[in-house]
Amino acid sequence: MTIPVLLVLAADTDPPPRLGRLTGRVRIEYADDATLAERLPGADVLLVWDFTSRAVRAAWPGRGPRPRWVHTASAGVDHLLGPDLAASDAVVTNARGIFDRPIAEYVAALVLALAKDLPRTLELQRERTWLHRESRRLAGSRACVVGSGPIGRAVAGTLGALGVITALVGRAAGPGVHGPEDLDRLIARADWVIAAAPLTERTRGMFDARRFGLMLPSAHFVNVGRGPLVVEDALAEALEQRRLAGAALDVFGTEPLAPGHRLWRVPGLIVSPHMSGDTVGWRDELAAQFVELFERWAAGGPLVNVVDKRRGYVPGH
Amino acid sequence: MTIPVLLVLAADTDPPPRLGRLTGRVRIEYADDATLAERLPGADVLLVWDFTSRAVRAAWPGRGPRPRWVHTASAGVDHLLGPDLAASDAVVTNARGIFDRPIAEYVAALVLALAKDLPRTLELQRERTWLHRESRRLAGSRACVVGSGPIGRAVAGTLGALGVITALVGRAAGPGVHGPEDLDRLIARADWVIAAAPLTERTRGMFDARRFGLMLPSAHFVNVGRGPLVVEDALAEALEQRRLAGAALDVFGTEPLAPGHRLWRVPGLIVSPHMSGDTVGWRDELAAQFVELFERWAAGGPLVNVVDKRRGYVPGH
Repeated sequence: MTIPVLLVLAADTDPPPRLGRLTGRVRIEYADDATLAERLPGADVLLVWDFTSRAVRAAWPGRGPRPRWVHTASAGVDHLLGPDLAASDAVVTNARGIFDRPIAEYVAALVLALAKDLPRTLELQRERTWLHRESRRLAGSRACVVGSGPIGRAVAGTLGALGVITALVGRAAGPGVHGPEDLDRLIARADWVIAAAPLTERTRGMFDARRFGLMLPSAHFVNVGRGPLVVEDALAEALEQRRLAGAALDVFGTEPLAPGHRLWRVPGLIVSPHMSGDTVGWRDELAAQFVELFERWAAGGPLVNVVDKRRGYVPGH
Repeated sequence: MTIPVLLVLAADTDPPPRLGRLTGRVRIEYADDATLAERLPGADVLLVWDFTSRAVRAAWPGRGPRPRWVHTASAGVDHLLGPDLAASDAVVTNARGIFDRPIAEYVAALVLALAKDLPRTLELQRERTWLHRESRRLAGSRACVVGSGPIGRAVAGTLGALGVITALVGRAAGPGVHGPEDLDRLIARADWVIAAAPLTERTRGMFDARRFGLMLPSAHFVNVGRGPLVVEDALAEALEQRRLAGAALDVFGTEPLAPGHRLWRVPGLIVSPHMSGDTVGWRDELAAQFVELFERWAAGGPLVNVVDKRRGYVPGH
């Protein structure tokens, strides 16, 4: 049996992980955005380590053979899954499972910071001003978590553990999950609306002026899914006009957010640099997960975390 | 039966609560720090609404009769319980129960903010700088909560719900509670050390240079108990010398913290203005709790939340 070629797509600034256990069992080659197209025909497997790259979308179709298997070191697959890859025979897998708990903790951190008015506390500290305020009680408040995959479920579980009454909204109704027909009703009474959905043609722009208009003026909005779920100008206007109490975005339509972007300075908005899932050791976990998948693949066994390329995410619970 | 006199000690800036249900059943009089001594002899009951006042300490002993019952709208009683009140026949009750859950949420907010490096994120946002960092995972980390009363237990419960392995330290070992003999060992391996103890002669200054020296350089310290539990200069030095990763104080030796105080600007320290328990509606809850206690007292029934004046807190679980 010939040794398979693993092509790793990685930015120079973010070197690929140690894949030590694969030494001798695979020939590892590297590509960046500029060299991907030329290196792809020789690859059996493509590891998309640089999940900010959109070069994979442009590489299907293309000249010569394509890898049979593409793995992305991310939960979302919107950056790589174009129509041609979707229509191809290639199997696409993702990093399902790695980010669930860290992202749920990050959402809890944002929700609690907003409930307890922590950004203002830090501002007052900078000014050396002692100003007692009343804050919100989280227990007994209501959250609507949009996205019923493992991340949404972990978010709902963590908020539930903090006493928040949490409704989960997915692509279709199911046990413990509301269908999209309930979304407007649920966000209209939620204290916390959390976006944790994949980016698909169904979810793009779903948080728009109309939906921000449905939310309570006392509500807060958090996005840890993908930037384009949100019409950013509509959110900025809702916050500027105090039609929403506050928000936190960890993901944006264009990342990194440009220094001149209006979102840096919207009142009541916390901006963080797409870091919700990235706890110390995450790169090693992603690498270990890929090695495990590779071993299944090399043994001819079925892969797990297989993306439904039509839907744009891994279905099931 | 004569109508009892209820004396309410309240600052002008913080008017007393609505005690509507007591109308006609009690004669309500008001005092501030300056007038307390002269009004006290005519009172049957003293409600210490202004829990920052230390005037009660000075009022025992004093000339003329003292109230038979003193209630403080706070969890801690250190501000009122001097040796003379402690030795008297007066019953002292506190606001046990009102602050537990809010303070536990506040501690979770601080711990998560520190784990997820939120203060730095807000700083970077101000500078419009996109800088991805790795953050800490809370689940699986270790906390040591010092104080095994209802607040400490609520803190431990909430951290436990977030997956933190939590040890509780009290005045004496008991079911689920470590005794003080375990304190040094526990804080030496904790990622999070949370002070939620009452201020007594045993706890004053317990977090000193020696104890900060025992903690891990990666550990964080949080105080939501009373300021004097901590030797503030020792904490400031530990943080300045990076012998501790970070800290958050909601309580201080002197409150409000003076504008020139060094603690406002210690690196890695979050300063908040004694607000951990004060969620929207807290004043109404404190008033309702007092009304309920008053009804027990007026009916001749036993009071609850009775402080052990020798120990300085309400004993038992």
